[in-house]
Amino acid sequence: MTLDLSLLPDGGTGWLDASGEHSDIVISTRVRLARNLEGYAFSGRARDGERLRILTQAREALADMPMLSDGVILRVDELPAEDRLLLHERHLASKELAGLNDVPVRSGAALYLSGRFGVMINEEDHLRLQALHSGFAVADAFARVEELDNALGARLPYAFHQEFGYLTACPTNAGTGLRASVLIHLPGLVLTKEIGKVLAGLQSVGLTYRGLYGEGSEVVGNFFQISNQTTLGRSEGELLDYLVRVVHHIIEREEESRRVLLRDAGYIIEDKLWRAFGTLRYARSLSFDEAMNYLSGVRLAVGLKLIGGLSVYTLNKLLIFSQSAHLGRSEGRALTEIEANVARARYVRETLAAETV
Amino acid sequence: MTLDLSLLPDGGTGWLDASGEHSDIVISTRVRLARNLEGYAFSGRARDGERLRILTQAREALADMPMLSDGVILRVDELPAEDRLLLHERHLASKELAGLNDVPVRSGAALYLSGRFGVMINEEDHLRLQALHSGFAVADAFARVEELDNALGARLPYAFHQEFGYLTACPTNAGTGLRASVLIHLPGLVLTKEIGKVLAGLQSVGLTYRGLYGEGSEVVGNFFQISNQTTLGRSEGELLDYLVRVVHHIIEREEESRRVLLRDAGYIIEDKLWRAFGTLRYARSLSFDEAMNYLSGVRLAVGLKLIGGLSVYTLNKLLIFSQSAHLGRSEGRALTEIEANVARARYVRETLAAETV
Repeated sequence: MTLDLSLLPDGGTGWLDASGEHSDIVISTRVRLARNLEGYAFSGRARDGERLRILTQAREALADMPMLSDGVILRVDELPAEDRLLLHERHLASKELAGLNDVPVRSGAALYLSGRFGVMINEEDHLRLQALHSGFAVADAFARVEELDNALGARLPYAFHQEFGYLTACPTNAGTGLRASVLIHLPGLVLTKEIGKVLAGLQSVGLTYRGLYGEGSEVVGNFFQISNQTTLGRSEGELLDYLVRVVHHIIEREEESRRVLLRDAGYIIEDKLWRAFGTLRYARSLSFDEAMNYLSGVRLAVGLKLIGGLSVYTLNKLLIFSQSAHLGRSEGRALTEIEANVARARYVRETLAAETV
Repeated sequence: MTLDLSLLPDGGTGWLDASGEHSDIVISTRVRLARNLEGYAFSGRARDGERLRILTQAREALADMPMLSDGVILRVDELPAEDRLLLHERHLASKELAGLNDVPVRSGAALYLSGRFGVMINEEDHLRLQALHSGFAVADAFARVEELDNALGARLPYAFHQEFGYLTACPTNAGTGLRASVLIHLPGLVLTKEIGKVLAGLQSVGLTYRGLYGEGSEVVGNFFQISNQTTLGRSEGELLDYLVRVVHHIIEREEESRRVLLRDAGYIIEDKLWRAFGTLRYARSLSFDEAMNYLSGVRLAVGLKLIGGLSVYTLNKLLIFSQSAHLGRSEGRALTEIEANVARARYVRETLAAETV
């Protein structure tokens, strides 16, 4: 079985469309709920047969829901490695579900996708319900995932404890099972060296940050994922309100940093960002980190209105489609690192040439 | 008095036209003869009145020569500093004649320019006859300057000694008074790290090298001026033949280096050169050294046919017109270093935008 991306609703890229609020700074918002089914061990400890029964139950429940008529289910465990990486690069499957990092993919690992929702099946938890939304849209994303949760919960026996709430494989997820995260671009705070204070402040209020690809991933290109740290002991409403308030504050500080940069170092910044554009526009080989860093510069330049004619949607697309598995997919074969760097430079170059003067 | 460049035959830029042999590697060839007049102290020790009489004598001799009807004479000592720097940047006046480097300009310092020749008057020697030619054209440049020398020598009493030949202020110039130099671009030899051997070889055969602006100037942008070291005890023909043979050999080694680079590191070189182009194409501030280094990359790329649509003439023009006094001239005022960097980036950017796709 090879993944046919055309089967996926909008290829799973609706969240790139730059439609939400503050979409030049906030790329996307994700809300996920961790749920497990009564009567089975957690995925990591379950036998193959158990996981397959979980998959069957989930599939039947999903098929029973009229609101999900546009969805597809992918047997992640039957996909070749490049396709699993592709789903991960597209922010649709976690590393754990996709069986990356030399950990073999778990049998029964599957991914349900519709235009509005996703469900990872047999990830760390039996079910990870998620909604990914373009821009800063915590309430919208939560409303979607809550709708899905209500419908699924009516059809599946969730593991729930009167005192602890929803039970999860990792105790940090117990309670609401909620994690809301915002992928945010903070080059202004990095350039003004304010970022350290902002990140330290996050941790003191129960939030945390990660790189582009979640837990354990490094920060590249000044992209940060900010999310709640724990879920136990608070209501969903409280957790979300809190995240929204803090992120609003960070957006204001980022905007303030950008104003300061332009005021105090205008031509230096302008020069730096245009050089980033020039490199992306003409380089013949680009490593992923390099591409992310220069794209960060170009994104900032577009935000500051220094570079015109380039849409935020294009910038979002470049972030995702310049990754190795995506490049391999468009070249029709797996690429060595050197080949991927050459293909990345070509893809970025041609995309920018087509969209700018 | 302010310099009106339109009075100069072709603005003194005929040597940029990329018409000579090997003009992608050899920018220009210069041949000069040092001559002094009997009955005066050398310029550095002469009194003001003597130098003015030398100027008068030279001016009368030049005016008497029908072949020079298109020439103009500039009183360098009456020009403001920016104009003297401009003549130096255009390779028409030496640092000494232009009175740069905090040494005041000498009274009586003057420059005769026609489309084919130049004469510096009251430089280190009373007269420095020179011909500057595009590309690798030692014989042509010498033929021109010899014609001028014969005509002037018939009208002026040259200081000449039976045994030592032409007498000059500095003994290294005595004898023929000839210096022939070739401005050559050797990025291939620099990138393959062969350049050290080539330069060491030069010195062992009586040749020497300098940077873009002659004695004491640093090498930038992989541009070298290669010339004969001494003139005493050899005929003009021997000196020129020798230089021509050695430079031909260096051109071959440079071409070989370029083949090796493309063969062994093709995509790395291609990437490096296109990035140089991208930076020049979009930067908002460029120091002179930076501009020279990136232009060196672009010149190599044009030589390797990696970048098309850009003429060697344009590249030559960029070398000269991106210098501070030239930028100040086109902005209509003297520029601070920061302003010059911004003006340089704009000039380079707009020139490349107009000539490439």
